[in-house]
Amino acid sequence: MTTILVTGGAGYIGSHTVIELINSGFRVIVVDNLVNASYDSISRVEYIVKKKVIFYEIDLRDSEKLSKVFDKYKIDAVIHFAGLKAVGESTKIPLEYFDNNVGGTISLLKVMKQHDVKNIVFSSSATVYGDATRFKDMIPIPEKCPTGPTNPYGHTKLVIEGIMRDIYASDNKWRIALLRYFNPIGAHQSGLIGEDPTGIPNNLLPFLAQVAIGRRQKLNVFGNDYDSHDGTPIRDYIHVVDLAKGHIAALSYLANLKPKEGICREWNLGTGKGSTVFDIYHSFCKAVGHDLPYEIVGRRSGDVLNLTACVTRANEELKWKAKLTVDDACRDLWNWTTKNPQGFATPHYHIADHLYGEQRIHDVIFENFKFSVANVGATIVDVEVNGHPVVCNFQRLSDYAAKENPYFGATIGRVANRLPGAKIVIEGHTYDIDANEGKNSLHGGSHGFNSKYFFGPVTSYDSKAEAVILKFVDFDSDGSNGYPGDLNTYVSYIVTPHSYKIEYESSLDSSSKSPVTVVNLTNHSYFHLSDESNINETDFKLYTNKCIDTDTSLLPTGTISKLTQPKVMEKFRLGSNAFDNCFVLSDDVESLDTRKLKAKKALEVSNSKSNLQLKVYTTEPAFQLYTGDEIAVKNYGKRSGFAVETSRFLGAATFEKWQRQVILHKGDLYGASTTYVFSSLDH
Amino acid sequence: MTTILVTGGAGYIGSHTVIELINSGFRVIVVDNLVNASYDSISRVEYIVKKKVIFYEIDLRDSEKLSKVFDKYKIDAVIHFAGLKAVGESTKIPLEYFDNNVGGTISLLKVMKQHDVKNIVFSSSATVYGDATRFKDMIPIPEKCPTGPTNPYGHTKLVIEGIMRDIYASDNKWRIALLRYFNPIGAHQSGLIGEDPTGIPNNLLPFLAQVAIGRRQKLNVFGNDYDSHDGTPIRDYIHVVDLAKGHIAALSYLANLKPKEGICREWNLGTGKGSTVFDIYHSFCKAVGHDLPYEIVGRRSGDVLNLTACVTRANEELKWKAKLTVDDACRDLWNWTTKNPQGFATPHYHIADHLYGEQRIHDVIFENFKFSVANVGATIVDVEVNGHPVVCNFQRLSDYAAKENPYFGATIGRVANRLPGAKIVIEGHTYDIDANEGKNSLHGGSHGFNSKYFFGPVTSYDSKAEAVILKFVDFDSDGSNGYPGDLNTYVSYIVTPHSYKIEYESSLDSSSKSPVTVVNLTNHSYFHLSDESNINETDFKLYTNKCIDTDTSLLPTGTISKLTQPKVMEKFRLGSNAFDNCFVLSDDVESLDTRKLKAKKALEVSNSKSNLQLKVYTTEPAFQLYTGDEIAVKNYGKRSGFAVETSRFLGAATFEKWQRQVILHKGDLYGASTTYVFSSLDH
Repeated sequence: MTTILVTGGAGYIGSHTVIELINSGFRVIVVDNLVNASYDSISRVEYIVKKKVIFYEIDLRDSEKLSKVFDKYKIDAVIHFAGLKAVGESTKIPLEYFDNNVGGTISLLKVMKQHDVKNIVFSSSATVYGDATRFKDMIPIPEKCPTGPTNPYGHTKLVIEGIMRDIYASDNKWRIALLRYFNPIGAHQSGLIGEDPTGIPNNLLPFLAQVAIGRRQKLNVFGNDYDSHDGTPIRDYIHVVDLAKGHIAALSYLANLKPKEGICREWNLGTGKGSTVFDIYHSFCKAVGHDLPYEIVGRRSGDVLNLTACVTRANEELKWKAKLTVDDACRDLWNWTTKNPQGFATPHYHIADHLYGEQRIHDVIFENFKFSVANVGATIVDVEVNGHPVVCNFQRLSDYAAKENPYFGATIGRVANRLPGAKIVIEGHTYDIDANEGKNSLHGGSHGFNSKYFFGPVTSYDSKAEAVILKFVDFDSDGSNGYPGDLNTYVSYIVTPHSYKIEYESSLDSSSKSPVTVVNLTNHSYFHLSDESNINETDFKLYTNKCIDTDTSLLPTGTISKLTQPKVMEKFRLGSNAFDNCFVLSDDVESLDTRKLKAKKALEVSNSKSNLQLKVYTTEPAFQLYTGDEIAVKNYGKRSGFAVETSRFLGAATFEKWQRQVILHKGDLYGASTTYVFSSLDH
Repeated sequence: MTTILVTGGAGYIGSHTVIELINSGFRVIVVDNLVNASYDSISRVEYIVKKKVIFYEIDLRDSEKLSKVFDKYKIDAVIHFAGLKAVGESTKIPLEYFDNNVGGTISLLKVMKQHDVKNIVFSSSATVYGDATRFKDMIPIPEKCPTGPTNPYGHTKLVIEGIMRDIYASDNKWRIALLRYFNPIGAHQSGLIGEDPTGIPNNLLPFLAQVAIGRRQKLNVFGNDYDSHDGTPIRDYIHVVDLAKGHIAALSYLANLKPKEGICREWNLGTGKGSTVFDIYHSFCKAVGHDLPYEIVGRRSGDVLNLTACVTRANEELKWKAKLTVDDACRDLWNWTTKNPQGFATPHYHIADHLYGEQRIHDVIFENFKFSVANVGATIVDVEVNGHPVVCNFQRLSDYAAKENPYFGATIGRVANRLPGAKIVIEGHTYDIDANEGKNSLHGGSHGFNSKYFFGPVTSYDSKAEAVILKFVDFDSDGSNGYPGDLNTYVSYIVTPHSYKIEYESSLDSSSKSPVTVVNLTNHSYFHLSDESNINETDFKLYTNKCIDTDTSLLPTGTISKLTQPKVMEKFRLGSNAFDNCFVLSDDVESLDTRKLKAKKALEVSNSKSNLQLKVYTTEPAFQLYTGDEIAVKNYGKRSGFAVETSRFLGAATFEKWQRQVILHKGDLYGASTTYVFSSLDH
């Protein structure tokens, strides 16, 4: 597999290119200093492609750190996007532009040279031409047009091109593609990634988008007295996804040169078709569905009539051509904008990277409530109420991989709880499942969901509900732990200032060979409402006393009994009572997607010392209550916490009479929802 | 006083500019990474100007270190020379050129901006024009000539100019002078600093110089079919001292702008007069005194007929004009070359900077002999024979400033030993000298030569004698410690594989108001020939038994007596014998400059345990033998070593009958010479 290091891969063009790279079968390593980009774009790229993106938060100027990445991976080529890019800003702080862009590139090239990596695609810009109308016959602009940028941003791009030309002249083993972008617009059609400018947008479409979403009052049109069909100036707008594909084409061009042949050559990436400001305006208004306010103001100094690309060279040599239209771009931009009115920013949501090395932890922080999730197992690694931690956890993510870990906070799947004989029979077909507890299978098998890297999250904010939503996705391929079918599973955490809801959604992928599988998901958090060494002084109130019977090995027998103690809805102190029982809340499920059903209260737990209370509501028909009598792990012993594992019936996958709770056919949805509400007792 | 930070101040143009700056009254701080320059040039600049140059070995790209220099000093302006400069090399390693030159400049400008230092004179180059003959009417080349460098070196200069223009555009408080040098040649007329190219010289004159000195066989003349008077191409050669003065003119121009006025402007620095290759050749042959071998070879690609500067702008605006001729430059280059055939390099000589922080220690290292000197006091800080240290010293230079230091290794002056009543009468005029020992003055007074920073050294190598010569200079102004007259003192150490000779030379400066002073110099090293805790088991043999009488305060009485013990030339073990006596070797001096006289053996000392022997020879008439009975200082106690202080008579400055030994008139030379020879006893 070819490995591509992408600098600035978290940015607008970078993130779209990373998607195309992964979809084209490249392994991608992203390096970004995140000064002008958000790690969210990487989370979302992973979510979109359902693959892990290797990411390093490194400033290119830190050649020591950068060098370590080159030491670690055998990098075949670099796509170099990283750099500051605001023309206006560059005239105010030119030194920062030279330092970041030129300094960063020098450092990158040094490290590349040290590691004998001599293939690079550089993100240059049509800005290097400056005003091409100052020459005769240079519109559309060909690559041979003399350069002459008119601002520091453009200067940095031209200087970098010059450095690369000098390097190639000194050593013609280098393969260097200088891609001069015209005006990238639009967004990925998923609506999950797009342009997220800081401050007042410099470019037409991002500005229009902010007008449409109400963040800006109106569009200023700088002059309508140009010699175009509607009087506004003409530019070459290219859909960012087309642009991204241009990089794959350039990589392929470089890779297909003859052995020992090098190159350093410029290619324009544009459409070759000009659009006026009003053309764009009308197209975007069409996407939005109504006209947007604008005002004609005076011409802007430096603006000229027409800067359209001549794209013959790229079309012919790179075998690449822009295919998407301005209308496509406007539609995709509007989709991105409505889904992300504030760009990537989600209130109360933060990424903490200090805990677990390369792994990011996703924190939602309200005044009195903190909720933290890791990608592996979509594991809840921390819940804090009024500053008190209320779930069992580890300080290092690596500890979660320990054998003794009793599934702290993890998502459990495909089938939670015990599967007798590690075997299922679905519609006459028998499947052998991974037996990881003697002859039986527990919590999905040895490599269950708890140990898998979930992609994402995609975060959003519901301001009415004051809820932060973190949505992860897992792709579980056919045969994983013996289960049939390619399964997509979405895990959403909907976090409010006092509660969190977990929503599961699974479906067989359209590409799945097997038309059927089984699913029964839960989360395995252990709660402790006080700082006491065990939960014995904790009070419980159960809203059911029906239990699924188990044998001495805790395997289901297929029958249901009523406990005489504790009584339904009667508060009791846990004391020496011990539970590892599957309680039943309803006799069956009315729908495989229980999210449609009304949630039932499962239990109430409180602690008079800490004054904290936890109420659990679920749309699921059952829950396993486990009082942690077997916990024996780092920092935690017996009864350090209790688990409330809402799910389908224990044995649902085994006993035919209950199988409809867990059997998922292609085209159907499995769904479940459970809410954990924390409060103080005196409220 | 205006403080100028000079980057690359140890280089060819930099060092000449530092001299002009200091001579113009500026305070200079030099920053240089020394990758392409020698600290010797700084030593020599100090020697030439007799002022200290603040020096930091810093790579500009280390902005943290650089920033500390800006924190420490209030810098008014920067002259920025630092950078790689070999055109040919730049085509081979362009990245290093961009990294050093552009990266270094960006870092420098960042630090300047952070410290609100916005005045800079930049060392650009006529190379930025490239082939100016490609345009009509651009010879002589005016500043408005379009740029177009043809090699990475030139690219870096142009990029830096561009960065500076962008910075000025962003903040017009900056004052930026871009000086485009034509072809600097020549050397300082002292012959102490000049161009010292590494490898094969790229430029005509340094190459010719190496032909003249025998390091190269012949000069290649690249084409004699150009349209010039002799067929060789025409360039604009400027004497480096003229060029250096151009920087002072530029600084002054910037300083004289109206308040709040900024600028970023280019000035050519050249003569405006073209010389052909043969013109230069003939001029240099004239300086050498005979013709040098050359060969006409084919034209070099990229060479053009004429690249002469138009210097009107610099002449008019900077009020600066080159004054020296090509003949002057050739004479100065030849002077520099003959004095320094290998450039700054001196065999066996090294600078150690790890011991004493900012202070450099000058080491001469032979196989079995090491000799180390510091600038303060021109102090001998270490002598090692066969790996054994044989002088008392401190590990930190700061310890030498301690009160208890019994003058370890230091140069003693103006008048060594005790001056009764701290008073001298010279030709009827009484001078009060600093009394630093009760009512008397000892070893020159409180701020004697031992505590002064000696400038230099200028090092050289006498291959016949296998001797490394380190020459320091001190300027002692009128009234220093009460002594009259501005005194120049040269201290030379001539180090061979087994010995060192100290030579003193003093004379009144031509500017001295007082026509007369007194001088009596010595060195105060303490020797111990073995590792024993004291010198009691050491054997002495004295070549005189005459002593100058002293009273109980060790003050001279003006008479001479013979000791009965020890006997002349009779070896004795020191044992409990104690000396602090001025022994007499001859009745008087025949010349104030005793260097002309034959050296006499003063004493022989040996140690049977270490097998080491020291013999001291001197042209001086006396020596103080002190057996260290009062030593009480860090690591050293009573009798840790003995001093042999060769000098004029104790009391020579006091007693009229002996005064001719020490009285120095303007125009005369005081001189003295003492040799310390080490050997193994069995030799």
